[in-house]
Amino acid sequence: MLLFQIISRIPDCYIENNENQHPFEATADAIYRFNMDVIDAIADHVPAVKPQMAFYDQYGSWGFAVFEKTVRYAKQRNLIVVEDAKKNDIGNTVLAYAQGHLGEVQTCSGDLVPSLDVDFLTVSPFLGSDSLDPFIDICIKYNKGVFILARTSNPGSGDLQNARVENGDSVSVVISKKIAEYAERFHGQTGYSSIGAVVGATYPQEAAILRNLMPRSILLVPGYGAQGAAADDIAPNFNPDGFGAIVNSSRNILYAYEKSSTKSTCSSDEYIQSVINATKAMQTEIYGMLKERCDQLQY
Amino acid sequence: MLLFQIISRIPDCYIENNENQHPFEATADAIYRFNMDVIDAIADHVPAVKPQMAFYDQYGSWGFAVFEKTVRYAKQRNLIVVEDAKKNDIGNTVLAYAQGHLGEVQTCSGDLVPSLDVDFLTVSPFLGSDSLDPFIDICIKYNKGVFILARTSNPGSGDLQNARVENGDSVSVVISKKIAEYAERFHGQTGYSSIGAVVGATYPQEAAILRNLMPRSILLVPGYGAQGAAADDIAPNFNPDGFGAIVNSSRNILYAYEKSSTKSTCSSDEYIQSVINATKAMQTEIYGMLKERCDQLQY
Repeated sequence: MLLFQIISRIPDCYIENNENQHPFEATADAIYRFNMDVIDAIADHVPAVKPQMAFYDQYGSWGFAVFEKTVRYAKQRNLIVVEDAKKNDIGNTVLAYAQGHLGEVQTCSGDLVPSLDVDFLTVSPFLGSDSLDPFIDICIKYNKGVFILARTSNPGSGDLQNARVENGDSVSVVISKKIAEYAERFHGQTGYSSIGAVVGATYPQEAAILRNLMPRSILLVPGYGAQGAAADDIAPNFNPDGFGAIVNSSRNILYAYEKSSTKSTCSSDEYIQSVINATKAMQTEIYGMLKERCDQLQY
Repeated sequence: MLLFQIISRIPDCYIENNENQHPFEATADAIYRFNMDVIDAIADHVPAVKPQMAFYDQYGSWGFAVFEKTVRYAKQRNLIVVEDAKKNDIGNTVLAYAQGHLGEVQTCSGDLVPSLDVDFLTVSPFLGSDSLDPFIDICIKYNKGVFILARTSNPGSGDLQNARVENGDSVSVVISKKIAEYAERFHGQTGYSSIGAVVGATYPQEAAILRNLMPRSILLVPGYGAQGAAADDIAPNFNPDGFGAIVNSSRNILYAYEKSSTKSTCSSDEYIQSVINATKAMQTEIYGMLKERCDQLQY
């Protein structure tokens, strides 16, 4: 579940316009109050949250500070935090991202200190496999995870992700095979690895192929709900045991309140209840699909 | 030129260990003192700086705040600021990045306010052309620019960037043709566009092909110096008029002081002089190459 998206859709009950504050500070405070209620509402129902960096760093260092506070609050509530920042770079730059977001960084006095310290980070693999290695090294060292983009959920995802390398494999397949190699190197007793993949819900046929290539990886599945994918569409992202995928829904849950209330009238209690109801509805739908489709369901 | 990379290579004269500060705050302060001296040293010699987000956001909101202060300081000194963050995402998320880094963002009171307000942003195009459109729209609206990754300078860049789409074009060529389309839509009186491309200096043959495909685009050229490319290697990134490329050097300039001094003994004056000398040496090398190679040199 994605925390906070668009300030204009946050109910007014979370907003306090304080004239002594910088407008970004007031906005960041509103986002944090909103996020705390979302986290409290979902903490007993879902395993993880996926805050999206773009909606925070647009408010500069105030936004970034609220991102950090949100990560801490979610971890206090025993939620797994998946930072969605689609980081990518090369050489010592990508190592800096890996250390800063998943590991420890060196300060000016020479100490190593954890910084953002999220559990998982989304990573963009298109600069080549040498651009991924530092992330994997840091995951192994600090027992963290990444979700590497294998097939995104947008309409134009095939433009370049369907291009083929010399042996005929598509870019998505090349990436998935690489992820499977990493996952083979680093997995737990259940057989699953924290080296996962992003495989959008909007291309089910492609998802079935990629699922088979990465048996040990958890697939992070965007595109459910607001982007158009239904429960049946995400079935191929799961293994036959009913595990192996984590489904993201953001707008459908965060703004469910708009069906029965308005931005100006919605109370905090009403908002929290709308989030709980939408979360449970999503789970009922997905569990129903899994019971029907996964012939070896293990729970 | 890249500002600040690795805290362990900053001369001690920029570091003050204040026990009342959080270690990241002390580190961020040291980075800012260092950056101000770098900017003062180069402001009269180069057109632009390229701060790399990875080296800032690893220190959380303190690092992010110093990134913002550095951007403001560089702009005060009339330098063009190229934020290197290789942003990429889809849909309304990518719009949030474009607005936050290049345009204006909406606050909780409904106002539109500029945020990071850099001049150029590096952008990763691999999620498909629909993931680029919001950046281009914001560039046109706010008269800003992007450098879109077409071919990176790392050893593994060919892994996926050489994959081919149905018509036989490589991924790098597909991206370059798309960039040329955008540049055709949005360019200035000189004929050049602020919709540019990143084309690494480490693959000169590839660079010559991509240069021809994007006549209106400025190419941002990493890989010079520390990554192994020499002046002759970057010749294909320029147009025959001697324009059309901006060459980045970071480690070779930032840490030039290490050739004649040490971290513990280097003074601020000595450091500034080493930056000026290294910058002038790079320029002499590149201008020499251009005079020899660009038969229609226009300056």
